[in-house]
Amino acid sequence: MKLYDSKLAPNPRRVRMFMAEKGIECETAQVDIIQGENLSDDFLAINPRGVLPTLVLDDGTVLDESVAICRYLEEIQPQPALMGTDPVSKAHIEARQRHMEFDGLMGAAEAFRNSFPGFANRGLPGNAGAVDAVPELVERGKNTVQRFYERLDQALAQSEFVAGDAFTIADITALCTVDFAAGAARVPIPDDCENLKRWHAAVSARTSAAA
Amino acid sequence: MKLYDSKLAPNPRRVRMFMAEKGIECETAQVDIIQGENLSDDFLAINPRGVLPTLVLDDGTVLDESVAICRYLEEIQPQPALMGTDPVSKAHIEARQRHMEFDGLMGAAEAFRNSFPGFANRGLPGNAGAVDAVPELVERGKNTVQRFYERLDQALAQSEFVAGDAFTIADITALCTVDFAAGAARVPIPDDCENLKRWHAAVSARTSAAA
Repeated sequence: MKLYDSKLAPNPRRVRMFMAEKGIECETAQVDIIQGENLSDDFLAINPRGVLPTLVLDDGTVLDESVAICRYLEEIQPQPALMGTDPVSKAHIEARQRHMEFDGLMGAAEAFRNSFPGFANRGLPGNAGAVDAVPELVERGKNTVQRFYERLDQALAQSEFVAGDAFTIADITALCTVDFAAGAARVPIPDDCENLKRWHAAVSARTSAAA
Repeated sequence: MKLYDSKLAPNPRRVRMFMAEKGIECETAQVDIIQGENLSDDFLAINPRGVLPTLVLDDGTVLDESVAICRYLEEIQPQPALMGTDPVSKAHIEARQRHMEFDGLMGAAEAFRNSFPGFANRGLPGNAGAVDAVPELVERGKNTVQRFYERLDQALAQSEFVAGDAFTIADITALCTVDFAAGAARVPIPDDCENLKRWHAAVSARTSAAA
C-alpha cells in the first residue's frame, strides 16, 4: 500500500501517528497542499476529492478520510487496540474522536483556512473549486477552539486520556488538533488549562508524536 | 437504553433509520431543537454538548454522535451488516459515509442554519453559546449541495448503492442529507441527475425511510 501524505497538515499527521503507534510502515509520497499539489491533475487522477491523506491499497482500493484509513489499519492489525475492544468502548471512543473533530479541529481549520493568504480562494478543503474565504469565520473558529480547550481541560480532569484510561485514536485526533490550533490557527493553550497541559506534555512525548 | 430524538432534524433520522433496518426498538423521548429544548438545563444535564441524537445505555453511558451510536448498534446486533464485514469493506463504507457528511450534510446544514430566522444567533449546533449566523454561508452551502448532488449522481452511475452493491450506513446518511438539503436547505435534486433520482426512489421506498 502507498500513503499520500502532506507533512504540514493535521489530517495526514493523524494517520502517520496511528501507523507509528501500530508499528506499520509503507511507501509514502508527499503532496504539498499549500502549493496546491493536491489539486493537480496528477493527484486528482488518484483521488478526485483532492484531499490528504489518501491510502491506496495493493488491490487499487483508494481510501481517503483519516478515520476510514485508521479503521483499515485497526482491522488488519488489531494490536495495540486504538479504537476499542467491545461495543461500549468502540462507540465511546468513536464519539470522543468525533468530538475532537467537530468541536475542535473544524474550528481550528475554519480559523486557519479563512485567514491564510494562500487560501484566499480556497475557502473549502479539497476539490471544491474557487470558494472565497469568509473573514467572519476566523473569529468564530478561534472562539470554537477556545471552548474546545476549556472543555477538553475539564474532561482531562476526570481521566488520563481523552476517551478514558487508555491512549486511543481520540488522543491522536486531539493532539493533532491542539498542535494545529496552537500553531497555524494561532490560539495558544490557555495557561490555566492544567489538565490539558499535563495531557499534552505526556502525549507529545510518545515516539509516535514525531511521526 | 433510551434514545433522545428530534423528529425534524437529519441526524436523529439517521439513527432511527439505522435502528429500523436492524429491527431494534427502544424507549425514546422527543427533544425539540427548533424550540431550543436541546439547550435546556434538563437536556444539558443528560448531554452537556446539547446535540441530538443522544443514546443513554442502561449502564448510564451517554453516546452522542450519530455514527458512534450506529457503531454500538452494529456491534450488539451485527445483522444485517450496515458498516461492512471485512477490513476493506469496513474502511470503504466508513469513507463513503464520511463523504456524505463532509461533502453534503455539512453544506446543507450551513445553508439552513445561516438562513433560518430561528437560528439567527445559533450559528453553530449544540451548546456553543450565542453565535451569529453568517449570511455568506447560505450561498456557499447551497453550492456545496449542488456539487454533492452531481458527484453522487456520477457515483450512482457506477454502483447501485452509495458504497457499492449493498445498502449500508452510507445510504442512510446520503438519504437523510438529500431530504434535508432538498427540504430545509431548499436545493432540489437536479432534474438531470437520473442516477441519483433512481437511487433516491429506491431507498425512500424502504420501510426504514419512514422511521
